[in-house]
Amino acid sequence: MKKILVTGSTGFIGNYVVQELLKNNYQVIASSAREEKAKQFSWYSQVKYVAFNFQDFDESINYALFFDSPDAVIHLAWEGLPNYKSLFHFETNLPLHYKFLKNLIVNGIKDITVTGTCFEYGMQDGSLSEDMQSMPANPYALAKDSLRKFLQELQKVEPYMLKWIRLFYMYGSGQNPNSLLSQLDKALANGDKVFNMSGGEQTRDYLPVEKVATYVVQIATQNNVTGIVNCCSGKPSTVKSLVEKYLEEKNKNISLNLGHYQYPDYEPMHFWGDDKKLKTIINNG
Amino acid sequence: MKKILVTGSTGFIGNYVVQELLKNNYQVIASSAREEKAKQFSWYSQVKYVAFNFQDFDESINYALFFDSPDAVIHLAWEGLPNYKSLFHFETNLPLHYKFLKNLIVNGIKDITVTGTCFEYGMQDGSLSEDMQSMPANPYALAKDSLRKFLQELQKVEPYMLKWIRLFYMYGSGQNPNSLLSQLDKALANGDKVFNMSGGEQTRDYLPVEKVATYVVQIATQNNVTGIVNCCSGKPSTVKSLVEKYLEEKNKNISLNLGHYQYPDYEPMHFWGDDKKLKTIINNG
Repeated sequence: MKKILVTGSTGFIGNYVVQELLKNNYQVIASSAREEKAKQFSWYSQVKYVAFNFQDFDESINYALFFDSPDAVIHLAWEGLPNYKSLFHFETNLPLHYKFLKNLIVNGIKDITVTGTCFEYGMQDGSLSEDMQSMPANPYALAKDSLRKFLQELQKVEPYMLKWIRLFYMYGSGQNPNSLLSQLDKALANGDKVFNMSGGEQTRDYLPVEKVATYVVQIATQNNVTGIVNCCSGKPSTVKSLVEKYLEEKNKNISLNLGHYQYPDYEPMHFWGDDKKLKTIINNG
Repeated sequence: MKKILVTGSTGFIGNYVVQELLKNNYQVIASSAREEKAKQFSWYSQVKYVAFNFQDFDESINYALFFDSPDAVIHLAWEGLPNYKSLFHFETNLPLHYKFLKNLIVNGIKDITVTGTCFEYGMQDGSLSEDMQSMPANPYALAKDSLRKFLQELQKVEPYMLKWIRLFYMYGSGQNPNSLLSQLDKALANGDKVFNMSGGEQTRDYLPVEKVATYVVQIATQNNVTGIVNCCSGKPSTVKSLVEKYLEEKNKNISLNLGHYQYPDYEPMHFWGDDKKLKTIINNG
């Protein structure tokens, strides 16, 4: 059975991707900088865990060997989120993650899946499809967009398979405590009467993280998939309706103080993913 | 009088830019990695020359002081040309030149002019204007395009003036010996009967390098210019007609073996610069 390296395995998505790979009987090498956190996950005993901090990256090391020669990698690691506007993303992360992936590739790992972001599309409204020109408008998006372009140029010189998964919005247990639904959970747990949020009229594309993990694993493990794939629901939903649906499902009540927060300036008001390519992959799975 | 640092001063354009600045009575700090070459130029005694090799870049040095505190910089230096397809451009040059310029900026130089390339437009045909989306299609173009985007993000955090000059084609004395007109000069000097060239039907935008230098200096020294500026003639010309005009001006004859070389795969067949913005700048000069 294929041996797959998952970087960022103790991150929000990583935890679910490892579970999904194990469920599908893959051999998993899980990596992250936080072994103490990894030990708390039920999957810890079922994987080969290799602690690695990207700050310790050393070009003279063969990382294919370091990670016990996996057949493929799902590269989720990325430091400094969710601070999208920090220059750190392209000043530090971009060259580091490029060098890391190139190291794996030249050392023989030719099946590479990397997570990108819907922010690569930038300030473009509406349904976003993979063949659209990217227009990153913040340092995080610019770093991911540049990483993808660098990796695509590398393919011309050093052939390998690249799957670039553009993540849209997601929610679920273990998410960043500052995210919308985590904040809502906290407000409910506190018994708050009022929940402060933005106007809620912005249209987004949301998926539960468990679903995202199944998509990531299907994309990463199919041999005939290449290039960019939107990982999305394909269904536009306003943030307000997301919150209302969430409260309904939990059978909870709280008064929404709409308009308390401004809309973020680094995103367009209405966008969602075109899921045509994703659907084809899922149907082949 | 303003003190202007010119990096890459011993390069093809650099030599002419230094001359043009001196003609306009600017105080010039000229830099390059090749002091021996610099000594051969007549301007050597009229500038403060500071030898610097980008390979020796050291983050702990204050380069504003190192270069004697110029008021502005015209950054022409860029290694590894004309090998457009080498990954070196974004793997090595991009982070190095970004760090170098950031170092100048945070150390107080707030007036920065950098040369980009028409290749940032990528495989787009026709008249290319500065407001078009860039679509770099080779590692050199990608590195320059990324450098510009990084510098634009840096502006949001660390305000400074950025002028980004997109160079189109040029010709003149001192050009790379592999360039078209240098090869033609050589063939003429050899008394060759036949000159091997491409089909010559590709449309380009050519300027004599002396003209390019006057444009670069005008753009760099005007206070109200910002952003991207095409440095171009605005007039499409086929490569064949460029060669024929050149022969006519020199009153020379040689048989053109058209179609001997293939058209390059990293350029569209027909493109030239939109010079509206440039003209406004020149008219204000």
